[in-house]
Amino acid sequence: MSLNKSVLSTLGPELLLEFPAIGSPEEGYLAIAEFEKSCPFPIARTYWVYGCPENMQRGGHAHHRLSQLLVCVAGEVEVTLNDGTEKQIFLLNQPTVGLLQKPLVWGDLRYRNQAVLVVLASHPYAAEDYIRDYQHFLALTNV
Amino acid sequence: MSLNKSVLSTLGPELLLEFPAIGSPEEGYLAIAEFEKSCPFPIARTYWVYGCPENMQRGGHAHHRLSQLLVCVAGEVEVTLNDGTEKQIFLLNQPTVGLLQKPLVWGDLRYRNQAVLVVLASHPYAAEDYIRDYQHFLALTNV
Repeated sequence: MSLNKSVLSTLGPELLLEFPAIGSPEEGYLAIAEFEKSCPFPIARTYWVYGCPENMQRGGHAHHRLSQLLVCVAGEVEVTLNDGTEKQIFLLNQPTVGLLQKPLVWGDLRYRNQAVLVVLASHPYAAEDYIRDYQHFLALTNV
Repeated sequence: MSLNKSVLSTLGPELLLEFPAIGSPEEGYLAIAEFEKSCPFPIARTYWVYGCPENMQRGGHAHHRLSQLLVCVAGEVEVTLNDGTEKQIFLLNQPTVGLLQKPLVWGDLRYRNQAVLVVLASHPYAAEDYIRDYQHFLALTNV
């Protein structure tokens, strides 16, 4: 398995999406995720992760069918995506950038600087959609 | 018009909603908004407001049909809701609390302490849904 460490500016448009943002330093900003405009799926669920100790690692799973758009609205989150063959590391620290985590992509996340991560999810919660066993994930993605 | 100043702990369940949150101080927390579980409408759009100067006032409008759930995930937002007859002031500073702004309710928001407000909206963006003229709003709500 190769490790392809990427930073924000070097990534292509297929995983990093830009949200339209309206505003100025004088009044603040508003950024929008909406299906068929700036989100590739209807938003079935929105959740947010907060209150993490510095450098806390979370995630550690993939999904069978869920797509997610990860938006770091405060602090910084380092996301390692892994499709079973390759890893890419994304540093999220801009509220206008969403990282698309597709089905069958394993995600490991590190939270820093009082990060808040907002996640837009394509489906309602379903326990059976989670893949938590890494060997099982590798078996599923290397067929 | 009376001014009914309320703080979080004194408000009834009709406008303040509690999101289920999972976690601990050691690992951080995750709070979820999902239709038919913790959000009273399907989420057509999610937007977030950030980068506001201290005590910046935003909002200053109502909507004809849009319902919104306001969640302060960082800092503090003071929200004044006004139904044309009465005002209520809500202090939002907990990521597990959502404030429901219904149609025909005017909202004025003050952002403090590097606040980030996540808003779940019931409909896609529609310019014609905004009511920006306060006298027109009063005429609509006092019929």
